[in-house]
Amino acid sequence: MQNTIMTPYYSSVLLNVLSQQNVPYTPVWLMRQAGRYLPEYRRLREKAGSFLSLCKNPELAAEITLQPLKRFNLDAAILFSDILVLPEAMGMELDFIEGHGPQFLSAVTTEADVDNLDMDGMLERLNYVFNAIQNTKSLLNPNIPLIGFSGSPFTLACYMIESKSSRNYLKVKEWLYNKPDLAHKLLTKLTTAIIEYLNLQIKSGVDVVMLFDSWGGILTDAAYEEFSANYLRLIINALDKVNNKTPSIVFTKGGSSWLDKIVTVGSDAIAIDWTANIKKAKKQVGDIVLQGNMDPSILAVGNKKAIKAEIKRILTDYTEANAGSIAGYVFNLGHGVLPQTNPDNVAYLVDTIHELSGK
Amino acid sequence: MQNTIMTPYYSSVLLNVLSQQNVPYTPVWLMRQAGRYLPEYRRLREKAGSFLSLCKNPELAAEITLQPLKRFNLDAAILFSDILVLPEAMGMELDFIEGHGPQFLSAVTTEADVDNLDMDGMLERLNYVFNAIQNTKSLLNPNIPLIGFSGSPFTLACYMIESKSSRNYLKVKEWLYNKPDLAHKLLTKLTTAIIEYLNLQIKSGVDVVMLFDSWGGILTDAAYEEFSANYLRLIINALDKVNNKTPSIVFTKGGSSWLDKIVTVGSDAIAIDWTANIKKAKKQVGDIVLQGNMDPSILAVGNKKAIKAEIKRILTDYTEANAGSIAGYVFNLGHGVLPQTNPDNVAYLVDTIHELSGK
Repeated sequence: MQNTIMTPYYSSVLLNVLSQQNVPYTPVWLMRQAGRYLPEYRRLREKAGSFLSLCKNPELAAEITLQPLKRFNLDAAILFSDILVLPEAMGMELDFIEGHGPQFLSAVTTEADVDNLDMDGMLERLNYVFNAIQNTKSLLNPNIPLIGFSGSPFTLACYMIESKSSRNYLKVKEWLYNKPDLAHKLLTKLTTAIIEYLNLQIKSGVDVVMLFDSWGGILTDAAYEEFSANYLRLIINALDKVNNKTPSIVFTKGGSSWLDKIVTVGSDAIAIDWTANIKKAKKQVGDIVLQGNMDPSILAVGNKKAIKAEIKRILTDYTEANAGSIAGYVFNLGHGVLPQTNPDNVAYLVDTIHELSGK
Repeated sequence: MQNTIMTPYYSSVLLNVLSQQNVPYTPVWLMRQAGRYLPEYRRLREKAGSFLSLCKNPELAAEITLQPLKRFNLDAAILFSDILVLPEAMGMELDFIEGHGPQFLSAVTTEADVDNLDMDGMLERLNYVFNAIQNTKSLLNPNIPLIGFSGSPFTLACYMIESKSSRNYLKVKEWLYNKPDLAHKLLTKLTTAIIEYLNLQIKSGVDVVMLFDSWGGILTDAAYEEFSANYLRLIINALDKVNNKTPSIVFTKGGSSWLDKIVTVGSDAIAIDWTANIKKAKKQVGDIVLQGNMDPSILAVGNKKAIKAEIKRILTDYTEANAGSIAGYVFNLGHGVLPQTNPDNVAYLVDTIHELSGK
């Protein structure tokens, strides 16, 4: 793989990629790089109690955010938090039941429920997030950027209407098909909340923001445009640009056939899951940066030979589709690190990506 | 929508579409059109005991196959059966646990397990399927074709390796990434079995065969080619052609970004799920027939207005992409009818499709 000598504007390889500059090697970070697969996280979790109490403790959240950076040569940190803390701060009571994932104690079912979502004081109730960002930044190597994030309006709406994750999201579908106006009212309110939330994350110190549209893939092609992409676009347009630029990444899980639509959202980077063909994806996104593509299950069950082969395939395919250059690509998985993953595999992954891409 | 006057070779609208002829209206059938959403099915099920005992009773299987045809103006019947009866006939003990779906009592875990899969006598043990086909054909309106089917090699392998459906299919992924040769050995054996199974279904009277690659969508783009599409291609090439032609339909759930690959499999028709944009899909598949695209949840929770709007959208989009003609399209859902579906909605769907497309 051929690299171009570059004069970086940032000291961070990730920020250079996201601002369309050449880089000496491919940066890598992993969705859920802080979490259950790390024994030091599990130890902290045992002491501290619930997942939510960790999110709400700015010291512990910063500590957990930094845990993977102490082990691995990662090129970014991502704040330890959860997408559901935003609806919680709007008044929805949230419970994380061990082994069953997050659940709201009551769902949004009526227009009154939408009206009752409380925007006043929401940001104050999220102070622990902004404090965790400041704590993390004060401890983080200044060459390593911190990524902040939010769920997409549609994905948050899925959880709020169903009260938890669901097999077919029939309650959500009922809103979309039978009462689209009410769905749009909820999505519009969430969009406003997310813009405020992300802009205060930026003000608090995050260097990059990412929107997780984890459930966009359950939609039809037409409904994805109407109920998800439209709102992603509104958010991207309304993000504050600190120092002229805080780059944004958009990820729709299951959206690999919609890349032509996702490019119109306006983010600096598009994350892809493992079903996407990265060569075709590169052609579809043009100059927009790509992130991701590796199947997280390879890290969980694959041996080192399989991990290396997959890294090679992804880097080679991307470089071929990008006129021989590694520019414009951020290595990541196509979804979060699985809890079954051996941390040794993560160390091997990170170092191999750096080595194969030119470090 | 403009139709061309035609001289049908078949008396069946579906068979005419599948053989590239013009038709007076769009044919429709539904995946899982016989099943739990029908009260007459539930009554029979209560009397007869387990799901598997229904599949294994050629009289009852024929009766259930015909149940939806008595209620709705469907353009095809599909045999009431299950994709897992094939591995069961190869010696794997199968149980359907109420509310938990199908499960094998033990999984395929070693090379010896693959070797022990019993091909001798497999077809004899599946006699009840061929008898059910003959019974159904003797009772079915001769203008209505009967669709036979099998799971794809990859999808059957998923169930056999995991023993049941799974969240991340990590056992399957371990085979693919760490012992691909063993995976190919299993897939090759299944391919041989499926060819024999489908050819005997054709000999027994089915007019169309369909391959359900229900779990292909969990794969990476490269693994889909290597572990699923390759084997679909082998099967399509080896199907007996009765009267010169028994048309084939291939369905990979979650495969909407792989249509350029699926066209190379060689089937007469490609079924698409609801994430596919049908206009783009038509351009990608060229002259190959398209089937499907409607979100099954609309039938389960949508009102009649929403159902009609979605039918209109799909028919209009397809016709626009096909130079104003409805030829080359079979209406269907993007997955099976959900158990929550009201049969009245199915009646409305079928009649509305016929009416809007020219009947």
